[in-house]
Amino acid sequence: MSKIFRRLVDVVEAVKLLDEALHPSPLGVEKVSLDKAGGRVLAEDIVSKIDVPSFDRSLRDGYAVRYEDTSHAREDDPVKLRIVAEVEAGSDKVLYIRRGEAAKIATGAPIPGGANAVVMVEYTREEEGYVYVYKQAKPGEWIQYAGSDVMYGEPVLRKGTLLGGREIGVLAAIGVTEVPVYRRPRVAIISTGDEIMSPGSPLKYGMIYDVNAYTLYTRLLEDGAEPEYLGIARDSPEELESLLSRGIRNYDVVVTSGSTSVGLRDNLYKVLSKMSGRGILFHGVKASPGKPTMAAVVEDKLVMGLPGFPVSCLMMYDRIFSNIIRRMSGLGMVEKPRIKAKAGFILRGREGVKYYHPVFLKKVGGETYFYPIHGGSGAITALANADGYIEIPENVTYIDVGEVKDVSLFSRRIKPSDLIIVTSHSIALDNLVRDFKSRLSHAHVKVIYGGSTAAVYAVRDGYNDFGGMHILDEATGEYNIPFLKSIGIRDIVLYRGFLREIGFVVAKGNPKGIKGFNDLLKRDVRFVNRTGGSGTRVFIDINLRKVADDQGVSFDEIISMIEGYNIEAKTHSSIVASIESGKADVGVVTRPATIDRNVDFIPLGWENYDFIVNRKSLSSDGVLMAFLKYLESDEAREVLKGVAGIKLDDTYMSLLLEL
Amino acid sequence: MSKIFRRLVDVVEAVKLLDEALHPSPLGVEKVSLDKAGGRVLAEDIVSKIDVPSFDRSLRDGYAVRYEDTSHAREDDPVKLRIVAEVEAGSDKVLYIRRGEAAKIATGAPIPGGANAVVMVEYTREEEGYVYVYKQAKPGEWIQYAGSDVMYGEPVLRKGTLLGGREIGVLAAIGVTEVPVYRRPRVAIISTGDEIMSPGSPLKYGMIYDVNAYTLYTRLLEDGAEPEYLGIARDSPEELESLLSRGIRNYDVVVTSGSTSVGLRDNLYKVLSKMSGRGILFHGVKASPGKPTMAAVVEDKLVMGLPGFPVSCLMMYDRIFSNIIRRMSGLGMVEKPRIKAKAGFILRGREGVKYYHPVFLKKVGGETYFYPIHGGSGAITALANADGYIEIPENVTYIDVGEVKDVSLFSRRIKPSDLIIVTSHSIALDNLVRDFKSRLSHAHVKVIYGGSTAAVYAVRDGYNDFGGMHILDEATGEYNIPFLKSIGIRDIVLYRGFLREIGFVVAKGNPKGIKGFNDLLKRDVRFVNRTGGSGTRVFIDINLRKVADDQGVSFDEIISMIEGYNIEAKTHSSIVASIESGKADVGVVTRPATIDRNVDFIPLGWENYDFIVNRKSLSSDGVLMAFLKYLESDEAREVLKGVAGIKLDDTYMSLLLEL
Repeated sequence: MSKIFRRLVDVVEAVKLLDEALHPSPLGVEKVSLDKAGGRVLAEDIVSKIDVPSFDRSLRDGYAVRYEDTSHAREDDPVKLRIVAEVEAGSDKVLYIRRGEAAKIATGAPIPGGANAVVMVEYTREEEGYVYVYKQAKPGEWIQYAGSDVMYGEPVLRKGTLLGGREIGVLAAIGVTEVPVYRRPRVAIISTGDEIMSPGSPLKYGMIYDVNAYTLYTRLLEDGAEPEYLGIARDSPEELESLLSRGIRNYDVVVTSGSTSVGLRDNLYKVLSKMSGRGILFHGVKASPGKPTMAAVVEDKLVMGLPGFPVSCLMMYDRIFSNIIRRMSGLGMVEKPRIKAKAGFILRGREGVKYYHPVFLKKVGGETYFYPIHGGSGAITALANADGYIEIPENVTYIDVGEVKDVSLFSRRIKPSDLIIVTSHSIALDNLVRDFKSRLSHAHVKVIYGGSTAAVYAVRDGYNDFGGMHILDEATGEYNIPFLKSIGIRDIVLYRGFLREIGFVVAKGNPKGIKGFNDLLKRDVRFVNRTGGSGTRVFIDINLRKVADDQGVSFDEIISMIEGYNIEAKTHSSIVASIESGKADVGVVTRPATIDRNVDFIPLGWENYDFIVNRKSLSSDGVLMAFLKYLESDEAREVLKGVAGIKLDDTYMSLLLEL
Repeated sequence: MSKIFRRLVDVVEAVKLLDEALHPSPLGVEKVSLDKAGGRVLAEDIVSKIDVPSFDRSLRDGYAVRYEDTSHAREDDPVKLRIVAEVEAGSDKVLYIRRGEAAKIATGAPIPGGANAVVMVEYTREEEGYVYVYKQAKPGEWIQYAGSDVMYGEPVLRKGTLLGGREIGVLAAIGVTEVPVYRRPRVAIISTGDEIMSPGSPLKYGMIYDVNAYTLYTRLLEDGAEPEYLGIARDSPEELESLLSRGIRNYDVVVTSGSTSVGLRDNLYKVLSKMSGRGILFHGVKASPGKPTMAAVVEDKLVMGLPGFPVSCLMMYDRIFSNIIRRMSGLGMVEKPRIKAKAGFILRGREGVKYYHPVFLKKVGGETYFYPIHGGSGAITALANADGYIEIPENVTYIDVGEVKDVSLFSRRIKPSDLIIVTSHSIALDNLVRDFKSRLSHAHVKVIYGGSTAAVYAVRDGYNDFGGMHILDEATGEYNIPFLKSIGIRDIVLYRGFLREIGFVVAKGNPKGIKGFNDLLKRDVRFVNRTGGSGTRVFIDINLRKVADDQGVSFDEIISMIEGYNIEAKTHSSIVASIESGKADVGVVTRPATIDRNVDFIPLGWENYDFIVNRKSLSSDGVLMAFLKYLESDEAREVLKGVAGIKLDDTYMSLLLEL
């Protein structure tokens, strides 16, 4: 019974297979009240059951008359008509006037029978039961005839219309209060994996929070579905099958994330293969990120198998499944928002797959450029920082600087940034940016965290306007200046920033009694190092050389005595987390990285965290210039004074280097 | 205390006055759960309280090792390491390995302390508690370090961000489940007028349904507000004041519609002037439609006074107030969707006001044109048919054919139509269009109802592709052909359509015993005529001439004997409604106009309802050609057979005339 696809398909093929298997279309019709109908999709043509207006209606305050009675009226010689009635708006009196008669009438009031025109009050005078008309009336003048707007039986809105304010108004006008709309597809969401836990309780060691359930929930809502979260299936085929069966039984569609690859714990393919229905439509997509994506039809219900990595999951939902759900909900396919932009930096493709490269947008001299965001498909920051993505086809090795491409935007609201800050992370700089933005609210500022070297090279590569760095030179013991001089970079300016305290991080109470670098040599002390090239690593090695000198042994001998010297963490956080969890006993970090953490800090010295500026980004009216002015202000100094573990001296914002 | 503006302001001035008086900004912060946060606006910067990942994590299935242990590993000469542990994803065991040791590890599992690389399972072989490693590992290989994605203390989302799937995913990843968002402004909606009733019960004579309450309700929801409908204030200052006070007391903003002009029943200005606060900000806007628009600040609350006519009300809400509400809800101002298009027909401005002219869009040979929609600010059909509007500035008298203008679209989903049908209304044609559209779902077909002459002149003016007409020539007794020949129109083709039964409409049971046209001469019979030029009017006059001939008197004598001959209704509906309400006793209409109405129909004969085609709109691959092919199909004939009161003969779809 089951058709099995074990080869990779491309995205277009995947969509085609889904189309052919499902013919996605609305699943049914339900009635909702008019005030709940906004955003829903009309499931039937709406034919008016009334005339609008439903009676001949006066468009002015005045007198309803027979126009032929007024044919001799002149400004200096009025016609005299007997007032036989008065009609207010909302009146339900059915009247009739004959020749020589008139009825006083208000705007919106029903025209009496026998009347064929209204004379505006401005051209009349009323006296003792008579009206003097000073102007000839034209046939039908100031009468809105019944049905002249909408006629009984006229279709006013067509099936498939998305109901907004305008359409809701039309429905109200013809008295429709229960609106036939397409029912929303009910979609069950299942996450998979032993290491996944739902946000809400503190994260346990070795676990990560479930992201995809929330991402998909929100995206499904946007696509007109009614999502429900069934929970997390642990890495057992039985548990997965049980949740899948529940989803298939009670919902229109099931969407899972994770467990779609070909590893030992990837149970989805195995479980779905056994279930009855048309089986697996595809397993594996020629796309990156997103290769482990699959789809199956079980008992006529679509089961989407999305990758576990958040970026892959969201991208594959958007590229392959979003429009399927939109067609089921009646919203219909949408064109994703796109803009044309120039590549600001080289972007490489991936062999044999269509590569969806996350990018951010930057305004440079009136033109919009896109730049790659790195971090991989597992990275949340790629999700948070990207404005959209570009597609690099299978056969394209790279996109060169200056090439114009379509950027698919993550939302229509996205605007290119005016100021890009790629920087080594610092709470002090965060606070400065936040305060600056509150003062210059129209500025689009994007902050991307990388290391110091990433910040510097992003200036060289043209897309970084400003950043913070702290790279120590081993030979001179000086921060930042030697490094910038050594790499041959141009058009960069270095300003003095602030000082950050640096020291040992140890378990609460310092159980191993660490006081100085020579304590790292103790047999029972497990050290965790920083990666080579980082400012902290240079600081560590300078200090270990001093220990070696003191003890009269070589540097190599010293480091061979330190358990964990080769265990190099790429982040301060990794070091703090290693100490917190008990995996290691000591590391070297900045004081701000230990604040509010369950560790102790033992001060060793201060490092310079300085500011770099891209000289090419400077223009007199630019946001960067405004930010530099702000940094020199008393307000900025006040902000810095409020941050723990840092200090300023009077060289703050002095020019250190211009290249 | 009150500042009073009694002069007209333009739209820009109105917005400025509101800005200065209100400084619109979010009204407060509330916490919502993550699954309810989609579409809301973040009220605070979100700083991560965890590292992501929170531990060093394996990116592959394999073995955690010390890379220095593998430095001699070769494809033909493996390194042998002792397996001291096995780590699954989700494991909370804190392990440590030393030199010569390895831990079996799964993708996503925590890296043991002491390990500094992972070797993929593909490059290993396991045997009796040992792993043989066939490839050298690089430092840090396949390890995702704690905090390498998001570091503890890193800001991940900024205040003011609209939360979509992507942002919700980021919040989930860092374990945020209660999200600080701006609270929605609570807005009270009040309608005014004695003639207004809420949809839901049958419409009483002289009443119209409340449209604005529903339009505004839906638009306010879209702008991030929480609207509530307080009901209809009758035309009494006391009732209006009481509802207004309730609104001002319990809500953030009050929006009213109607009662904003300067007539006797327009109480809003008077009532608001007396209330305490900054008073009236403006009363009267230099815009059409929408002149009677006002705003006041009462007890620091904004009161919007919108016009009663639905189109005016919606347009003024959109132009003036929508962005104020959006700024209060934190959504921020949006640029309205616009496209550039060419004027397909002349559009006239209005002196002294900015004129917002409703238009529809049409695709002609790859280019987009806009055409005016007529019907006035009271018309629901203008709302239903328009795709958007263009602004004609105060000092511009007209926009000429071919001028390129910005069209403000009513929604982003709007697409230019491929086929425009301006036509005399017919249920039979409606059914044909519906069936056609169900067969060619990608076609954008717009149907606009006008009379037969409107249909013909819209072909002459270039924007009508197809229509139905039924104009009788008095001299020849022939339908449509003489009329088209007489007006000197070109590039029009006439096809035979179907026959529609025509006859008297009378009250149920025919109480006045109407059998023929001579019965109209009876003293107690009140006739209601059609306007001159309509096919029905010609039919009536032909028959009355016969009565005159039979009786040997002049036509003028005959018509002077008919009560109501000069009461000319512009629509069939007006006639049927006059009979239903008892305002008149007899009129002449087509049978389809009487179906399901509370009247009787007395047959008199058949009229030709024929099809006109704009020859210039024909192109071999166009939607018009497809529609003509459809009309000739058996499916179309089947549809027509199902319609009451019409018939087809074998001349159907034969060519009658080509000009």
